[in-house]
Amino acid sequence: MFTTFRGGQAGPWRIILNSAVKGEGLAAVPALAVTQSPTIALPLLPSTTSWRMAGVASHVRYVEKAEKEQLAEKQAPLGRKEATSAALIPIRKSAAWWALSQDERREILEAKSHHISSSLKYLPQVARQLYHCRDLGEPFDFITWFEYAPEHAPQFEELVATLRGTEEWTFVEREVDVRLQLAE
Amino acid sequence: MFTTFRGGQAGPWRIILNSAVKGEGLAAVPALAVTQSPTIALPLLPSTTSWRMAGVASHVRYVEKAEKEQLAEKQAPLGRKEATSAALIPIRKSAAWWALSQDERREILEAKSHHISSSLKYLPQVARQLYHCRDLGEPFDFITWFEYAPEHAPQFEELVATLRGTEEWTFVEREVDVRLQLAE
Repeated sequence: MFTTFRGGQAGPWRIILNSAVKGEGLAAVPALAVTQSPTIALPLLPSTTSWRMAGVASHVRYVEKAEKEQLAEKQAPLGRKEATSAALIPIRKSAAWWALSQDERREILEAKSHHISSSLKYLPQVARQLYHCRDLGEPFDFITWFEYAPEHAPQFEELVATLRGTEEWTFVEREVDVRLQLAE
Repeated sequence: MFTTFRGGQAGPWRIILNSAVKGEGLAAVPALAVTQSPTIALPLLPSTTSWRMAGVASHVRYVEKAEKEQLAEKQAPLGRKEATSAALIPIRKSAAWWALSQDERREILEAKSHHISSSLKYLPQVARQLYHCRDLGEPFDFITWFEYAPEHAPQFEELVATLRGTEEWTFVEREVDVRLQLAE
């Protein structure tokens, strides 16, 4: 199942911030719609007034058994009534990252950067869903979607700042940070 | 870059065997064509006289640093003049496999099933390329393509038999084995 994020004129999420963190940004548009479909939507013609990206909620690539159990125990589902704030953070990593072996990537991701354990700290307040898109020929490698209640914004900012301060993050070559509010 | 395998009436590879190893097979067709494209070809209408499958030659998912170096040192490229025999082996693994954590999958794949070290034994005689397709919404999870000179057929048969005797293989729920010869 593919999840497609369409930035444009319409959609239930209002875009309140659209920031190019590293590399090229995304066109400034007012709204976002998220849809699911069994086949991938082909990229539309390039547009300066809209954009789309798509990914797949796939199996875990680094998470180990004990971590998987902790995540399952602590995590919250998407779509909670109170979670009216969201962030859409698409990322592309460098060729150097993808040329590493599995154990080298795991070492950087968790042993050195504590990606999984840092994220665990903010569960269940900040719900998180990762979508993979590197193998789909998309411009980004991953899309991460976060949902939280407005009062948990400080915790979310802390999580994002933590992840951007890691060794893993030095392999990021493009990142956009889109913040959203559910329209009334 | 997507690699598409089309079984049908035309193509440089002659299909000499098409065997359903586990689960549903593929329609009997005489020829195979392999093409590469930057976008994925949408599945055509279902046909009883042709089939297609597509995948991506992606980054390694289990291989560790020392193994990666050994593979790089021993492996042969595709397209060697003498490698006129080939095998196309698409596989789908069970939901139970994909629900395992990364360390559990690595444990079964290598520590228990010696997938990587067994395959290394047959390099450079048997060239091998893995294509990932689970995230593409394809009917298979992987496509493995092997190329070898006809005189190395016994080594290839030994490799295939070894992999089918492993614990990892008990997670395979669909496998088709297509053998090919380059047309004169």
